[in-house]
Amino acid sequence: MSSSSTAQQPSPQLFFQTINAHQRTEALKAAIELEVFTAIGEGNTTAEAIAKRCQTSERGMRILCDYLTIMEMLTKQGNEYALTLDSATFLDKRSPAYLGGAIEFLCSPELLEGHKHLAEAVRKGGTAVGNEGTVGPENPVWVKFARGMAPMMMMAAQLMAKLVDPGAERKLKVLDIAAGHGLFGIAFAQNNPQAEIYAVDWKPVLEVAKENAQKAGVADRHHTIEGSAFDVDFGSGYDLVLITNFLHHFDPPTNETLLRKVHAALADGGRAVTLEFVPNPDRVTPPDSAGFSMMMLVGTPSGDAYTFAELERMFANAGFSHSTIQPLPPTIQQVVISEK
Amino acid sequence: MSSSSTAQQPSPQLFFQTINAHQRTEALKAAIELEVFTAIGEGNTTAEAIAKRCQTSERGMRILCDYLTIMEMLTKQGNEYALTLDSATFLDKRSPAYLGGAIEFLCSPELLEGHKHLAEAVRKGGTAVGNEGTVGPENPVWVKFARGMAPMMMMAAQLMAKLVDPGAERKLKVLDIAAGHGLFGIAFAQNNPQAEIYAVDWKPVLEVAKENAQKAGVADRHHTIEGSAFDVDFGSGYDLVLITNFLHHFDPPTNETLLRKVHAALADGGRAVTLEFVPNPDRVTPPDSAGFSMMMLVGTPSGDAYTFAELERMFANAGFSHSTIQPLPPTIQQVVISEK
Repeated sequence: MSSSSTAQQPSPQLFFQTINAHQRTEALKAAIELEVFTAIGEGNTTAEAIAKRCQTSERGMRILCDYLTIMEMLTKQGNEYALTLDSATFLDKRSPAYLGGAIEFLCSPELLEGHKHLAEAVRKGGTAVGNEGTVGPENPVWVKFARGMAPMMMMAAQLMAKLVDPGAERKLKVLDIAAGHGLFGIAFAQNNPQAEIYAVDWKPVLEVAKENAQKAGVADRHHTIEGSAFDVDFGSGYDLVLITNFLHHFDPPTNETLLRKVHAALADGGRAVTLEFVPNPDRVTPPDSAGFSMMMLVGTPSGDAYTFAELERMFANAGFSHSTIQPLPPTIQQVVISEK
Repeated sequence: MSSSSTAQQPSPQLFFQTINAHQRTEALKAAIELEVFTAIGEGNTTAEAIAKRCQTSERGMRILCDYLTIMEMLTKQGNEYALTLDSATFLDKRSPAYLGGAIEFLCSPELLEGHKHLAEAVRKGGTAVGNEGTVGPENPVWVKFARGMAPMMMMAAQLMAKLVDPGAERKLKVLDIAAGHGLFGIAFAQNNPQAEIYAVDWKPVLEVAKENAQKAGVADRHHTIEGSAFDVDFGSGYDLVLITNFLHHFDPPTNETLLRKVHAALADGGRAVTLEFVPNPDRVTPPDSAGFSMMMLVGTPSGDAYTFAELERMFANAGFSHSTIQPLPPTIQQVVISEK
């Protein structure tokens, strides 16, 4: 019964859906906070039963669950709701892949603040939030990132370790730049018992990485270097330098400065391993990677989602001989491997 | 290159897109404020030219236009952007159907406030915003509604007048309940030179309706009744009573009280004409109508998007003999006609 736009007839439907899209964020956030997905996973399937388990009104729960169904995060048959494969995997607290905690970062006031000043950011060409947005010194949002986003990055970290160090039979000295939760370095340590990891980040963030290394049983091979990646002494002789979700925060000249430092820290034959949102040259596909530029516009002075050609040029300008790219399914990100 | 969920492999993509959906709202709002669509309609097609026209940075405009392209509100070929049929019709200020002004209502602090307290509203079963949410007495948001939403309702108003009064050859006394911008009553007056309209709403809102009646050249047949539809004396002998986007704000008993009053105000053979978002009995399709429940949960104490069976029952309980429903394409709403 809903109308849609055709070549003949314009429709305000997309306008209406888009201007109200913020409701989708609020509904998902509320459902995670109220543990709706967990309640359904536990076997509560009617609005009445879910409401009882989550201590809410039945009416409010019915409207929320219908909305989650419309958003394809639940299914509905008669009056009974069920989890989808995705929501069972990622949004039921009892799932090992639960990533509901990511809302602490993705819906943090620090991140949302930038979006609220988008028009101003477009005028200016960079974040309209003071102190360099999220890349200002020691911004506390990165502790939220380290705690909230770890589960979301777990899969990428493990896939990356297998991809880059498939044999896992040789000694490996790994520098993990802007380690955050530390999961990327930790995955290499878990994958290869001879790997030694050196994680760089601000002190309060490294506390999270250390906790995670402890939990993963690799604390004895997980070392830390406190401070900004632009300032600290990396040491040298690394076989791998991991640069995960970092370059998008800065402009190309700033990145090239960092990459020259990375190049110097690598042993001969060493490789830089970059994880990024990489749009196609058209900058509008694939949608999630291309759309990531928006987050950088509102949150940083001059960050961006770089195409492979742009990344390749930065690495080449920093002295790297050769870069290749490959997808990391089922994640939406890609890995660029650059050889010294 | 983006991954998607299949029966075999769960993907966090939908989680990521949904939790970030608020960015879509912010991007569209900023584009309207900066007049991006108008600038492109005027013939500025590159980020550089659009930025110059809108007085923004080129970098910010490129990222915004790419994002609008991802949202399918623009198209992109090489470095040139173009309007879609929808954005040319509804978002270029020079278009007679421009509805960018709707953001003043749809993105008003009054409406957004409710969504920010969704979890609390689910617990409570109704708005968590004080003073009865948006249906509190004389809430100033309704002046924003009357000014901002008029263009969005213009098409529905004209389609409804043609549908309900196709002959337009007889005298017609029309009561327009919660008239807002007044466009529904005004459309009947424009459609039929013998129609006399009586518009009910709070005084500051009726000022907007009067302006619109003046502009439409029907001010001499457009009368006003100031006050709440629940309190004022409607008078009697109406051929039609228009109840547009009103019943969804209240619970069924409250609506039945109003409908009994409407029934009494109608002449014999008179009809109540209701415009509503009407979900199917499953309450999850069609998505826009079903999803409207969420707006009522966060914004009102006990409003809802009612199914046709529910509306039919309210009208029957209030004494109406018969109700029928029909869609009003290309709008996403439906018309219920109830006979005295």
